Amino acid sequence: MPYVNIKITKENVTSEQKAQLIEGVTSLLQKVLNKNPSTTFVIIDEVEIDNWGIAGEQVTIRRKKEK
Amino acid sequence: MPYVNIKITKENVTSEQKAQLIEGVTSLLQKVLNKNPSTTFVIIDEVEIDNWGIAGEQVTIRRKKEK
Amino acid sequence: MPYVNIKITKENVTSEQKAQLIEGVTSLLQKVLNKNPSTTFVIIDEVEIDNWGIAGEQVTIRRKKEK
Amino acid sequence: MPYVNIKITKENVTSEQKAQLIEGVTSLLQKVLNKNPSTTFVIIDEVEIDNWGIAGEQVTIRRKKEK
Amino acid sequence: MPYVNIKITKENVTSEQKAQLIEGVTSLLQKVLNKNPSTTFVIIDEVEIDNWGIAGEQVTIRRKKEK
Amino acid sequence: MPYVNIKITKENVTSEQKAQLIEGVTSLLQKVLNKNPSTTFVIIDEVEIDNWGIAGEQVTIRRKKEK
Repeated sequence: MPYVNIKITKENVTSEQKAQLIEGVTSLLQKVLNKNPSTTFVIIDEVEIDNWGIAGEQVTIRRKKEK
Repeated sequence: MPYVNIKITKENVTSEQKAQLIEGVTSLLQKVLNKNPSTTFVIIDEVEIDNWGIAGEQVTIRRKKEK
Repeated sequence: MPYVNIKITKENVTSEQKAQLIEGVTSLLQKVLNKNPSTTFVIIDEVEIDNWGIAGEQVTIRRKKEK
Repeated sequence: MPYVNIKITKENVTSEQKAQLIEGVTSLLQKVLNKNPSTTFVIIDEVEIDNWGIAGEQVTIRRKKEK
Repeated sequence: MPYVNIKITKENVTSEQKAQLIEGVTSLLQKVLNKNPSTTFVIIDEVEIDNWGIAGEQVTIRRKKEK
Repeated sequence: MPYVNIKITKENVTSEQKAQLIEGVTSLLQKVLNKNPSTTFVIIDEVEIDNWGIAGEQVTIRRKKEK
């Protein structure tokens, strides 16, 4: 019955990586809380870097500074 | 004042179906809790099937198995 | 596979009313989108009226004005 | 450590406006609660007007009526 | 029509501070995007410090280290 | 920069188990996507079993049936 929402920036995450996140979180919940995988939801939201702010700045700006 | 968020997989849901969901949920909240429709928000999120996991698998994989 | 989150103010909603909301939303999703009830999650969040703002005011204040 | 999620309709919000929202919310949390901007997340979700309902109607319909 | 969700740790935030957050966010959305305050929702979630993790640790642990 | 929200039913989850979930999810995101733990948020919401519905029923009812 767990519901897990993972929000990450939209920066070329592959289908395979998403599969690993889904599988990893589901196993973690089974191992730690004995939750049934068949009723464990994992939803990944990919957020545009213009739409994600940290330290008062858009990630877009921070990525430019990092270059 | 209710806020309702409906997350569904992104699988060709029509505008008409979305209208039915919005109308249906708003009426339900009015009927059960006497909530004012004019301040009832319903937000529908359509999630890529690659980004939705159940039973540790992406819906993409499950749909292939179902075929 | 739908996930529905209903946020309402914490104002003495009964267990029976919650049951009606859960059942109603699940049936609506089955009727409109043919979604399987056994993998339909409905989560109700009850929010303190001090913690819910509309029109820039806490519901606490609005309730006092309504009396 | 605050996490702020702003949902708005997808109606041509500019990058500059998003920057103002992110900066404004981060400063507000610093001023009111002395929260550290470097660990303040602000995420903006832009929702299709077909997917946002108020008063039982899609915003799409309401926008047509407003014209 | 904006919906804003602010998640903060449950550390004695006063009603007055919540009022300031609600008023501040609503004004910001009105100023930046000309949004109507009467249909702007702001919901504050206060999260137990045991339930909030950063850098792989519960805030409970971090608060002890800070002392 | 990831934000992860884990919703589970409120059924005596210990502080130690929460710590394992937080640590586990943070490590998973670091391993799969090379995300920086110091800006990875994990928030656990514990939902009353009266407020969580699956298959159109409250978990409260399902737990009684399971006994």
